[in-house]
Parts: sequence; C-alpha cells; structure tokens
Amino acid sequence: MSVTAASGFVAAGVHAGIRRSGPDLALVRSTAPAVGAAVWTTNRVLAAPVVVSKRNLAAAEPQAVVINAGVANAATGVSGIANAERMAAETASALGLEPEEIVVLSTGVIGVPLPMDRVVAGVQAAAASLDPEGGANAAAAILTTDRWPKQAVAEGDGFVVGGMAKGAGMIHPRLATMLAVVTTDYPLEPGEPAALLRTAVDASFNRISVDGECSTNDAVVLLANSTSGVERTAAGDEQFAAALGDVCAALAREIVADGEGATVLLEIAVSGAVSNEEAEAVARRIATSPLVKTAAFGRDPNWGRVLAAAGSAPFNGGFAHVEAERLSVSFDGAPVFVRGEPTGTTPELGGSAVAIDLDLGLGSGAASYLASDLTYDYVRLNAEYTT
Amino acid sequence: MSVTAASGFVAAGVHAGIRRSGPDLALVRSTAPAVGAAVWTTNRVLAAPVVVSKRNLAAAEPQAVVINAGVANAATGVSGIANAERMAAETASALGLEPEEIVVLSTGVIGVPLPMDRVVAGVQAAAASLDPEGGANAAAAILTTDRWPKQAVAEGDGFVVGGMAKGAGMIHPRLATMLAVVTTDYPLEPGEPAALLRTAVDASFNRISVDGECSTNDAVVLLANSTSGVERTAAGDEQFAAALGDVCAALAREIVADGEGATVLLEIAVSGAVSNEEAEAVARRIATSPLVKTAAFGRDPNWGRVLAAAGSAPFNGGFAHVEAERLSVSFDGAPVFVRGEPTGTTPELGGSAVAIDLDLGLGSGAASYLASDLTYDYVRLNAEYTT
Repeated sequence: MSVTAASGFVAAGVHAGIRRSGPDLALVRSTAPAVGAAVWTTNRVLAAPVVVSKRNLAAAEPQAVVINAGVANAATGVSGIANAERMAAETASALGLEPEEIVVLSTGVIGVPLPMDRVVAGVQAAAASLDPEGGANAAAAILTTDRWPKQAVAEGDGFVVGGMAKGAGMIHPRLATMLAVVTTDYPLEPGEPAALLRTAVDASFNRISVDGECSTNDAVVLLANSTSGVERTAAGDEQFAAALGDVCAALAREIVADGEGATVLLEIAVSGAVSNEEAEAVARRIATSPLVKTAAFGRDPNWGRVLAAAGSAPFNGGFAHVEAERLSVSFDGAPVFVRGEPTGTTPELGGSAVAIDLDLGLGSGAASYLASDLTYDYVRLNAEYTT
Repeated sequence: MSVTAASGFVAAGVHAGIRRSGPDLALVRSTAPAVGAAVWTTNRVLAAPVVVSKRNLAAAEPQAVVINAGVANAATGVSGIANAERMAAETASALGLEPEEIVVLSTGVIGVPLPMDRVVAGVQAAAASLDPEGGANAAAAILTTDRWPKQAVAEGDGFVVGGMAKGAGMIHPRLATMLAVVTTDYPLEPGEPAALLRTAVDASFNRISVDGECSTNDAVVLLANSTSGVERTAAGDEQFAAALGDVCAALAREIVADGEGATVLLEIAVSGAVSNEEAEAVARRIATSPLVKTAAFGRDPNWGRVLAAAGSAPFNGGFAHVEAERLSVSFDGAPVFVRGEPTGTTPELGGSAVAIDLDLGLGSGAASYLASDLTYDYVRLNAEYTT
C-alpha cells in the first residue's frame, strides 16, 4: 500500500513528540540505489527544509525522505537552516547514507523552531522501525489536521507506483500545507525523474485549489529504484508515465476532497479557449473565485458568477481572451447559458460533486481544475484557531 | 451634499419598481454643458449598459447619468443591449438631450432582463423630480444590499467635488457590484477628465479589495461643468486633483468598511519593494489572501500568512521580488518579524482596523491597499441567498 507499494521501499511513522499526540515523523527509504527529483513550491519565501533539500538534490540522487509534522520550520531565520541541515545529517547517519542523499520536509506551524532533541530521537526511532509494510504509518505521520490519510497506488506490467500526500484539511494558523512522496520500482536513469514528475504534477497538483494559497513548504518528491527488474521499453515508459499521472491525480483529488471545510468537489472544465494555457488561466480563476465557491456551498447554479470570473482571468499581464456572446455554461450537464444568451434553466444541484463546464467558443484550448467550496468551516478553521 | 454638492448639478432617486421596495432608479444631470469621462471594469464580460455607455462616451461629452439598481442587465444577450440603448434614449428624451450624452449604469442580479416599462416610467418620474438637493436620494437609489449610502465631498478655493458610490455590501447572488459618480464645478476642458479620473481611481478604487472579484458592471464616472466660475491656475489644478483624489479615496474606504460581512478594515502598507508596481502586486496579494483575511477576522496577528502571501505575489508573468531574509513585518506598529527573524512578539489586535506593515528591504517602492476580512457573514451572504 501507499508509498511502500513498490518493491525496494521501506517506511516508518513514529511519535517524536513534536506535537502533543499522534505520529509526527515519517521516514521513507529506498533499499536499492534510487534516482529522484522534486517539484517545489513557487513561493519566494522558502521554508528552511526546502532550501536545504534543493541543495541536496542538486548534489546527489535522493535515497530517503524524512518528514516531520507539527512545525514547518519556515520563517525561522538562520537557525532554521541549521536545524534542517542537522535533520538531514542525523537521518543520513542513522541510515548509513550521505546527508546530501536525504530530502527533508516539514509541515506545521510557521515561525516556530524545531524541537531538535525530539526530532533527532524520532529520526533514530523511525530508522529502527523501517518496514516494507510501513507505508500506512508514514502516511499517517505526515498529516496535520487532515481528516484522513491520502494514499494511492497504480500498477503497470511488472512495476508499481505508490504515493502518499497530505493536504489542506482543517489547516491550522501559520500552517504550511501540501506534501507528497511518490515511489516506484520502475527503472529510470538519473535525470529522467525531473521531467516526468513535472509533467505529472502540472496535470494534477497544479490543477487543484482549496483557497488559492501557495505555502512556503509545498513539495512533491519522486524516488525511483529499479528493483522491479522490468526492461525499459517505449510501451513501458508510456505505461509508467500514465501510472505516475494516475497516482498524482488520485492524491490531488483526495487533497481537494479533504479541503478545509469542504462540502462539495467542483469539477471545472474549460474548453474552446484560444490555447490550453488560456483555458488553464480561466479554469484557475473560476476555481479560486470566492463568489463561485460560496455559491457552490449554497448549491446555487450561479452561472453569472462563473461568467464574471471567466471574464477577469489574468493571463500574461493582461486577461485571457473571452467574448461574452460566444460563452456557453452548463452545470452538471444542463445548459444554463448558450452562446451569450441565458436559457432560463435552473438545474438542481445535489451530491458531493458539481460539474461546471464552460465553452469559450473561440478555439480548441482546454483545461480542467478541481476545487473545494468556501464554507463556514473554512472561515472557522482559519479564524478561530488563533495563536 | 453628495453628487449635487458642486454647483450646477441636479439629481433624483425614485422607486421605479425594479425591485420590490425602496428607491431603485437614480438620475444625475449637469444643468450647464459638462465634460466627462469614465473608468470601466476590466472584466472581459461586459454588462450591456457598459457596452452602450462606452459607445456613447466615445461619441459625445456626457451630460447625465442614469442608474438602476436591482437588475444588472449583464449576460442578457442582444436584447440587453437594446434595453440599455432604450434606457439612454428615454432619458435623453425626458431631459431634452441626445442619447449619446447619457451614461447608463445598472447594478443588481445578473442574467435577468430589465423590466423596461418600469424603467421608462421611472426615468420620467426621476426627470420630473430633479433637484439640487437630490443627491442623497440618488445615493440611496443606487444601493443594492449595502448597509449604508456612500457619499463624499471635498472643497477647493471656489469649487467643489462631490460623489456617491455603491459597493459590495451584503452582495446578492449574481450581483454586479461597484458604481461611483463624481461631479465637480471646476472648469475642465474636453479630454482632460479621463487622465485625471484614471489617476484618482488608481490610487483609490483600484487599491481596495473585498473579495478580489471584478464585476461585469463596475464603473466610475466623472462629470465636470464650469459653473464655479473659478479661473484655471496651476495651483487650482493641483487643488482639484487632490480634491478628486480625496473624494475617490473616501468613497473607496466606505466601500471596504461596508464590505460583505466585514468586521475589520485591513490597512496594508508595503514598502522597500523594487518598484511601486511590485509593492502594489505584493499589497494586492496580501489583501486578497483568504488566510490573511480569516486571520484578521480572528484578530490573529498571523505574520506567517502575510509572509507566505507576499512570497507568492504574481507580477509580470512571474512573481514579485521577495527575499525571506530581508523581510520585516509589523502589526499595528509592533514588529513581529525583523529582517528574516521572528521577534517573539504577539501583539493584541482590537478595534475596527488593523494595520499590517511589510518592509521588503529591497528598494524604495511602496504601495498601500485597503481590505475587508473574510467572515462567516461573507459566506452566509454569498451562499445562502440561493436563486
């Protein structure tokens, strides 16, 4: 299951005491030489573990990932960098690896120093309990206030891709948010994981929105060893790319479904754009519109808000091409606005998902996005847990 | 008072029956030949009155503004354009003007046709009751679910600038939002109002955020007649620009204070940016961050969220320059983060306004922004009024 579904991976999740109760330190290791890559937050304010892990990945192929929950080690200044470096060094020492072979991730409260005594003891305990069945424990140990663990597996002919993630469930104040670790026993060469992961992330984690925020700690890491023993073929490569995409998409969908206070999953599909890039810009604008998201919470097929959002989608320093008289919108398949004219239809929205389809009527560009709704609980979770 | 404070302006507000109760049709007219300009929504989906009024302004100097509340005449297709044209024609006929001299504005529900019989009767009733004391009635007639009317006046040596606005108070589903009309008896030449209004709007209405949305109907209109009789001087021109800026700033501040569900006014000041433009991008990102806005509702001095927002401010297709180790943040004047290190201070936030100051430590660019908080009432107002 999960991040140890592929052969040659072991994992553990332990209670290090970084937070009051529950597991809070996870370790994932490849038992055979691995290659890997990561996609990092685009935030200009990087958490210390992101700074250190980027440096490590530039120096060596990653063999293990250590993750703590409870404290993000973000906005912690010079001592934060030293703590992230020490976390890598202690992990390397416990596993007989070099510090540069460790990816360090943290999630939790911003601006608070890591309790290093507990972290070091936790790393040693986790290293001692690494197990091929440890994936579920690791997936539980990276959660902050998510409502459930997020795991996914996809199989190809003779190989496996598995992963775990944490998301934006019941986010704490000063919490840094999204992490995912994906492993596979498919044989990849050094340098290959980066482009493969980028493609998979662009179509999954980069197409979801809970609240449009981008944290200081967001990271997706891929480790690939070759323990499956399958031969590389063009067909196998295609299968692997598809499996990697499936695992990332499944984890991303779980993150949105478990979004802070979420009651409904919005499946936004934009077509007929001038380009795929413009379609994505329009889909993102709809996915992050507070008015669309509150309407979804009220189960209101409010196409006026969808049109207003589409018409104000930032693109390339201006706005995406939209012409009012060419727009068509449907909710759950029912057309409410066709080529610039309202149809007079008001569909009933129910269920745990709502499909919003917008055809711009201009070209063949298309993109989709997943989003959660904006609810009382989102406000409560983010306003009431004061520091 | 208000939009009739300057000499040579008359106004009226009447109940036309476009909505169930209360005044819903406003008329503002210059009694002497006026020049004018407007700043329009950047939304690509334009309401019909915006399309028609832009055309009118290109053809003639505006002499009167007619505004209805209750129905936005947006996303109403071909018949919506015809209705906006007819609204201009009927107003012109009632006032003895040309249709091109009329600015037509609408605010209210999107996607619903204007009840033209009521609109026409309302225009005639308003034209019959135009009065130099009619400003307050007009200001009341343009409100939708705002909690209070928004008016402002500034005086110079021998001239007056007055204005009225409506905002995003208790916004209805499918409601199109912000309108403002500003009048003055200062003598301006044809062509001059456009640049003056643009400058004033950039520093006021373009520096406020309730929920980051940009409606299909947003408009600010300036009418200037020369009835004050003051001579044009360089000092007078400066005084006029300042007065126009003051009126726009006062109206903009009222709109944020009356923002949907707002309980606190966020005064965001960014300094030390590479340029004023980057400072504005960073201030805007903070002003529209759901995490910053929910923290403000909880009166939580959550500087971690301010840093995370600053680090992800879109600018020119990338991100604004931000370096974590140079950042300083204070809440209500109390430093919480100085040059990349937390201070350990946690200020108490109270009152109806919170000042967030962010120094990027990079250059001399500065900008400020006003924002409302994100509250239960925002969600309630936008989710529960289902259609």
